[in-house]
Amino acid sequence: MHFVKIASELVYTVNSPSSFVFNIAAAITDHQKTVEENLFISPSMNREWFQLNNFGSRGVRIDAEPCELTINYNATVELSPDIEQNRYLNEVEHNKLPTSVLSFLNPSRYCESDRLGRLAWKEFGQLQPGYLRVDAICNWVNDHLDYVADSTDGSSSACDVLIQRAGVCRDFAHVSIALCRALGIPARYVSGYAVGLEPPDFHGFFEAYLEDRWFLFDATRMAPVSGLVRIGIGRDAADASFANIVGLAMMKSIKVEATAVDWELTYKNGGPVSTA
Amino acid sequence: MHFVKIASELVYTVNSPSSFVFNIAAAITDHQKTVEENLFISPSMNREWFQLNNFGSRGVRIDAEPCELTINYNATVELSPDIEQNRYLNEVEHNKLPTSVLSFLNPSRYCESDRLGRLAWKEFGQLQPGYLRVDAICNWVNDHLDYVADSTDGSSSACDVLIQRAGVCRDFAHVSIALCRALGIPARYVSGYAVGLEPPDFHGFFEAYLEDRWFLFDATRMAPVSGLVRIGIGRDAADASFANIVGLAMMKSIKVEATAVDWELTYKNGGPVSTA
Amino acid sequence: MHFVKIASELVYTVNSPSSFVFNIAAAITDHQKTVEENLFISPSMNREWFQLNNFGSRGVRIDAEPCELTINYNATVELSPDIEQNRYLNEVEHNKLPTSVLSFLNPSRYCESDRLGRLAWKEFGQLQPGYLRVDAICNWVNDHLDYVADSTDGSSSACDVLIQRAGVCRDFAHVSIALCRALGIPARYVSGYAVGLEPPDFHGFFEAYLEDRWFLFDATRMAPVSGLVRIGIGRDAADASFANIVGLAMMKSIKVEATAVDWELTYKNGGPVSTA
Amino acid sequence: MHFVKIASELVYTVNSPSSFVFNIAAAITDHQKTVEENLFISPSMNREWFQLNNFGSRGVRIDAEPCELTINYNATVELSPDIEQNRYLNEVEHNKLPTSVLSFLNPSRYCESDRLGRLAWKEFGQLQPGYLRVDAICNWVNDHLDYVADSTDGSSSACDVLIQRAGVCRDFAHVSIALCRALGIPARYVSGYAVGLEPPDFHGFFEAYLEDRWFLFDATRMAPVSGLVRIGIGRDAADASFANIVGLAMMKSIKVEATAVDWELTYKNGGPVSTA
Repeated sequence: MHFVKIASELVYTVNSPSSFVFNIAAAITDHQKTVEENLFISPSMNREWFQLNNFGSRGVRIDAEPCELTINYNATVELSPDIEQNRYLNEVEHNKLPTSVLSFLNPSRYCESDRLGRLAWKEFGQLQPGYLRVDAICNWVNDHLDYVADSTDGSSSACDVLIQRAGVCRDFAHVSIALCRALGIPARYVSGYAVGLEPPDFHGFFEAYLEDRWFLFDATRMAPVSGLVRIGIGRDAADASFANIVGLAMMKSIKVEATAVDWELTYKNGGPVSTA
Repeated sequence: MHFVKIASELVYTVNSPSSFVFNIAAAITDHQKTVEENLFISPSMNREWFQLNNFGSRGVRIDAEPCELTINYNATVELSPDIEQNRYLNEVEHNKLPTSVLSFLNPSRYCESDRLGRLAWKEFGQLQPGYLRVDAICNWVNDHLDYVADSTDGSSSACDVLIQRAGVCRDFAHVSIALCRALGIPARYVSGYAVGLEPPDFHGFFEAYLEDRWFLFDATRMAPVSGLVRIGIGRDAADASFANIVGLAMMKSIKVEATAVDWELTYKNGGPVSTA
Repeated sequence: MHFVKIASELVYTVNSPSSFVFNIAAAITDHQKTVEENLFISPSMNREWFQLNNFGSRGVRIDAEPCELTINYNATVELSPDIEQNRYLNEVEHNKLPTSVLSFLNPSRYCESDRLGRLAWKEFGQLQPGYLRVDAICNWVNDHLDYVADSTDGSSSACDVLIQRAGVCRDFAHVSIALCRALGIPARYVSGYAVGLEPPDFHGFFEAYLEDRWFLFDATRMAPVSGLVRIGIGRDAADASFANIVGLAMMKSIKVEATAVDWELTYKNGGPVSTA
Repeated sequence: MHFVKIASELVYTVNSPSSFVFNIAAAITDHQKTVEENLFISPSMNREWFQLNNFGSRGVRIDAEPCELTINYNATVELSPDIEQNRYLNEVEHNKLPTSVLSFLNPSRYCESDRLGRLAWKEFGQLQPGYLRVDAICNWVNDHLDYVADSTDGSSSACDVLIQRAGVCRDFAHVSIALCRALGIPARYVSGYAVGLEPPDFHGFFEAYLEDRWFLFDATRMAPVSGLVRIGIGRDAADASFANIVGLAMMKSIKVEATAVDWELTYKNGGPVSTA
């Protein structure tokens, strides 16, 4: 068990009555709890907290009149990763998968696993199924893609990124997810805070279903998995925007922080997966 | 309230141990109930019924050894459509939408609403929001696409279909859904049985969220909405395959039926939407 | 016959030995001649003029060492458009087309006419073949697309643009060309100078083959066809970049001008096509 | 110098007056000549031979009334490949390339080299430029793609094929061409006859410009390069269809043959490139 302090501040210039759904709070899962949590909104206004899905993601809905809107969220999160002898984690055969995870085998907007079957089997079909195969996918994605800021946009999918060979964190996650699904491994997108990420920002990574639960992976290798705090969880980034806005509002600034409390990140790459 | 008898028979030659998930049973919703229902599997074997999602779709999981596998499902379904003065059905503003339907605004594998904003607003932005706008989308889709058997495959998305201007029922639904979402109208894919469909087959259509619930639409205009029986409900066809199979199994034959009981379909096109 | 003065100045910061091919000089065609022409290069260096193709386009090749490179081109061009009673211009049947124009029926990088057959025939198939049909295509393109600066990039094709419904001049031309070819009308891309274009810049438009020669069209309707001066002519914009560069060189500034000499542009939209 | 006998017979059921352009005759180039050549058309009708381009490709145009149309072509072709010490063949720097080959650096319909720069440089950028690099591209294409009949269609491009990892000969050529162009190596598509191809059919391969001329390559490794006879030469397969038809005509049968005369193919893979 260890603790991470997270914080984010989003400022918008709201020019017309606007409906916001924020997805910036830590998700509540078996292995991730908020010890303390604050949400400040300025100017003061009503907010509605709600469950975004069955996986612990939480949304905040706000109805804003024209103003300068500041959303300030901070929390202390307790992570109790169940760190595995990860190399022994197995994939689960299709007929043994819990029915609740089956939909994470389906292709999605940014993860066209239906088109990538042959590529996935040619590259990874000979590998021993399990944790090491998902890790091999992360290595492959890391080798084949360049991390290039602004190289993709909101319409870029795993296939686009595989062609252009460049992307940002969400793209690394999308390609990894699509490859996992193509091999029959349920995989889902996770947005989050990341201790040690430089420059600090919201991060995108993924989870694969192994053995009997979801395990975190990050193909960017930019931050240790043990310092990842989940926010949104879904099919792909389409389900995990930190803000959905209908109305005329312009983002003015964004600040994101994540700090380890009383512990030290001792490895950055190749660390164990965890259920954090 | 009226009744529809539905039936389907799927036969597979199973050549290796195979894991099947079927999605062929009528969904259970507020306005759709099964009065009587039978599932025969030959050779006899265990089956696991489960909830595919929170919308009433049900899956059946089977683990088959090599054999000739026959799945025979039939049911009598009671539909209690709440037929509306449909022209007065309104769209719901973003800040008033139930949080449970927000995810049906997200783009999905076959419905790239994120790419279609300008098209949707240019074509439908000036129309009065509400039922009539969704109906206008159906008319537009019906006018712009040709129904051509085998013109698309499992990787064809709404954008592909808009370019090639041809598709089958699932494509008509995908384009309609993508356009609705681009306009801010939650929309989801529905697979089902359809009274009057020629030739008889599983059908694909969609629902849009208006006023305070989901309403059925079918841009193909090939069968009356009041005779549609829902099976799968999801983001798009990726969530509603009638069969997902892992293993070596070949479909040998398929038969699908849907018959009105004690009532007559009196209109085919332009009938009222309903919550059937 | 009338005259247009054109000029362009391109400035580059060249950081490594770089190979440039410029395509900024007026093409020489039956209906377009240069009366006077100057090319200044600073610092002074060798340049090689060459024929880029059989259609009159001319390239200039330069081999630059690290420097600040200025290319200054100006010319007076005599246009002798053979202005037709355009509404009587016919399309040419496939078996009567000169063999030299057949390749302009082929799909190209940015004009996927092979994918657009059904769209083209559904929208334009019922129209009278000939000039008026190509003009109808221009009107349709102008109606369906928004001109939005920076809405596309170097990988955007006609199909992409038809989906996103926005583009710049080259995109308007690409969509028009693709639709013409899909209907069996040879069409090609033309880059050029344009009198009256605001803001002044290089422009992109197209030619369709009618009756017995190539006629100019501009679906953007941003400048009169009679003031267009052709530079590059090819399958699509891939063949008509104003500069191809291999080496490390950054564009620092660009200025483009086109002015009518001793005549006045009296119409902007709907003017006659011409062989200018 | 060696000889190849080639023959093809195409039979069509022509249901309406139809305009055909065939591209099935051996091209005439510096290293490929026809010693003897016959074209039979039944029923007897006029045919027009013409130059399809400046590279030696020849078309035959026919105007057919409804009939059963048989086109029978045969020839003896003399190949005088200039077999090189191929490992010493160099790439040509951009500023030294003949201006006539520059257009073969441009992206084309099926070879989107503009999108593949990073992939090409990541995979092949560290290799020694020249013949061995193009050969490495062929090996990579051969390793990464499966040859699967009917896995692609007339709209499949290099990018599509790189994602789905399967294709036929034209796709292997398209991917290779796109990668060459992305590296600055002019490359073009060639259709042809191929001694030793099983099953016999028209074949698709490519040429790369090295040292001072075009050299043949075949990434499928299905037939020896020394037995390839060129027909069509162009940007990509869009320029080299063996038949373009406008009218209602259905292909009934096709037979293609290519036989070595008085010599033996002694290697199939890894043989020298040649200017055949």
